Amino acid sequence: MTLDEIGRRAKAVSRVLNTLGSREKNIGLEEAARALLDGEEEILTANRADCERAEAQGMSQGLLDRLRLTPARVQAMADGLLQVASLDDPVGEVLSMKLRPNGLQIGQKRVPLGVIGMIYEARPNVTADAFGLCFKSGNAVILKGGSDAVNSNKAIVECLRSGLACAGLPEDSLQLMEDTSRDAARELMRLNRYIDVLIPRGGAGLIKTVVENSRVPVIETGTGNCHIYVDETAEFHMALDIIFNAKTQRIGVCNACESLLVHRKIAKEFLPVLKKRLDEKGVEVRGDEDACAIIPEFTPATKEDWGMEYLDYILSLKLVDSVEEAISHINTYNTGHSESIITSDYFNAQKFLNEVDAAAVYVNASTRFTDGEEFGFGAEIGISTQKLHARGPMGLKELTTTKYIIYGDGQIR
Amino acid sequence: MTLDEIGRRAKAVSRVLNTLGSREKNIGLEEAARALLDGEEEILTANRADCERAEAQGMSQGLLDRLRLTPARVQAMADGLLQVASLDDPVGEVLSMKLRPNGLQIGQKRVPLGVIGMIYEARPNVTADAFGLCFKSGNAVILKGGSDAVNSNKAIVECLRSGLACAGLPEDSLQLMEDTSRDAARELMRLNRYIDVLIPRGGAGLIKTVVENSRVPVIETGTGNCHIYVDETAEFHMALDIIFNAKTQRIGVCNACESLLVHRKIAKEFLPVLKKRLDEKGVEVRGDEDACAIIPEFTPATKEDWGMEYLDYILSLKLVDSVEEAISHINTYNTGHSESIITSDYFNAQKFLNEVDAAAVYVNASTRFTDGEEFGFGAEIGISTQKLHARGPMGLKELTTTKYIIYGDGQIR
Repeated sequence: MTLDEIGRRAKAVSRVLNTLGSREKNIGLEEAARALLDGEEEILTANRADCERAEAQGMSQGLLDRLRLTPARVQAMADGLLQVASLDDPVGEVLSMKLRPNGLQIGQKRVPLGVIGMIYEARPNVTADAFGLCFKSGNAVILKGGSDAVNSNKAIVECLRSGLACAGLPEDSLQLMEDTSRDAARELMRLNRYIDVLIPRGGAGLIKTVVENSRVPVIETGTGNCHIYVDETAEFHMALDIIFNAKTQRIGVCNACESLLVHRKIAKEFLPVLKKRLDEKGVEVRGDEDACAIIPEFTPATKEDWGMEYLDYILSLKLVDSVEEAISHINTYNTGHSESIITSDYFNAQKFLNEVDAAAVYVNASTRFTDGEEFGFGAEIGISTQKLHARGPMGLKELTTTKYIIYGDGQIR
Repeated sequence: MTLDEIGRRAKAVSRVLNTLGSREKNIGLEEAARALLDGEEEILTANRADCERAEAQGMSQGLLDRLRLTPARVQAMADGLLQVASLDDPVGEVLSMKLRPNGLQIGQKRVPLGVIGMIYEARPNVTADAFGLCFKSGNAVILKGGSDAVNSNKAIVECLRSGLACAGLPEDSLQLMEDTSRDAARELMRLNRYIDVLIPRGGAGLIKTVVENSRVPVIETGTGNCHIYVDETAEFHMALDIIFNAKTQRIGVCNACESLLVHRKIAKEFLPVLKKRLDEKGVEVRGDEDACAIIPEFTPATKEDWGMEYLDYILSLKLVDSVEEAISHINTYNTGHSESIITSDYFNAQKFLNEVDAAAVYVNASTRFTDGEEFGFGAEIGISTQKLHARGPMGLKELTTTKYIIYGDGQIR
């Protein structure tokens, strides 16, 4: 099937999905979950083929772990669909219907976006997760997964579509691009006549390519060069716990801490206890000149370090003279994801909250909380680091738009 | 000054604007309005030079009228700034602060977008209007006006900046690109390291170029192939008044009606009275075969007519068998702007509201109401016809984004 035909079908189906009630959509999700469990054998067989090929091609253990499916992971995908079914449906709510002086009643109604394109890499569970959220919010979705997971994705999509068919719902609500080449991805990015929004999920390279080449509006997700600033009034034990958590609890995620700013006045006292705590997990600290003068075991940082998202047991560290310098450094080097200040000072807390430019700004908490589940959305399709449409974790509501509906009785201008 | 330097300055100033209160911003707007009036002489002189050159180059009377400034129009620009000063400031509002089970308080705060780029054509009043809305919502703005209005724009921007300086506010809140070439515009579209959103205002060609070339997120505005569907239960007098108003009250605007759909059952009775009414203003009707069979004076429509935004005394007309066919035709050919049904039937009204995919969907009212003032926003920066971020008329609120602010007391995951 050509991509044009895929787009045309998605657009046509989106007109149908727009008219479905929550009850019908939830039945679709439940049938899809059941079909995933029924198809476990086929899914695992297909996934084994992907994993064997990837291993033969020398894929790293970390990536292989993301690619590999198990019975428990298939169960988790099915459970995820049921969880999405249990969430409130944002579609159809009318916000702020107002009566104008001329008698027009103008309301803003929440409606599906229409057709969503997802481009992602080698995690096959994204296939089921993305389908669940897009479907519940009334959108058709076109998936372009990574070539490493092609067999797994095909098997998963086949199950999900058969579940939809069982529920008497259109299978084309979910379509997978079988061509996983870069050319096909670029063609998808130019399909603005059919696709309303494109969401890339993956590494910085993928996201940059999409932003630079897409004619379809994009929601940028993901890369996080997250900072923690330890103010001169910080409680040390709290700072240490938060830094340790934000850096080491899970290193490969976008809300992990990558860079530390410490007030110069407390550095001599704080850096030795910091080093001791980070040594527990063997974290390499790349410090500026003054930090290295205090702790000679730190690696000297280069200018490049301030912009790095390591996703590893590495942390950059810079001493600053004030909260203002910390804010300015963060606003220069951050990726607009998550930033935290550790402080006991009221005014510095407020200043940091007001002036740091990021999707999530914390006082005295770990950056690791930037997450749809932690924020209470139930599920998320990604974390937006751009400012248009959605910022921060994106749940069902962020997969909708609004339209104005106007009731008149003959009004003219 | 290079465009990189312009972008750098805008970004730096946006950090300052983000911290201003409404009172300071309103003083800036008032001083800018005063400076416009004080500079009337210089502005009109500069505008005369633009108009003379444009006339010599054979610009049409319609465009010349948009380009030309008068004392009354300068006054209107100043009044517009004072009106924006009187509007509520959307910045700083915290929506839905919630307490999570772990004690984190998570709130969503409305903040400025940051730096806005505007690309527009030959209407110099857009210069003051865009500045007013961007400044009030706490954003720095970079303007790229049309080359025909270059002297007028320079004079207006000089006044506005001097007004800001008088108020002790940063002049670089507003910067005008002196290079009005297409290459400069393309460079602006690639300045995503500084600019948060690009808003093109102008004809379909300009908007298409921006959508296809921009790396900065774009809010598409403007083009309107707006339909009116006359249902079989429509009251004829209401239908005639609304069609006459929507087509002829102002022909050059994006919310004017361009295409008419009429239920086949009433066509024989309705088309003759419609023709009579439209003849009052000499509107050319381009009808499908069946419409032309009823009124031989209609021009036969070609397939291209269904997609046309005429912006002229021309209207396409097609007979349909049902509200379903009307909706399907509209969803195929519209530009997502404004659509109206004229009906007395409750179910058809609801069906049309639910299923037509557009920024504004009307029952028994003219499409001409899609406008920030008419919707009660006080002012608008354009009408978004895309689905991300903003849809329909965009006021101050649509020039903001949100960030999550989180108060903790040591939470870790």
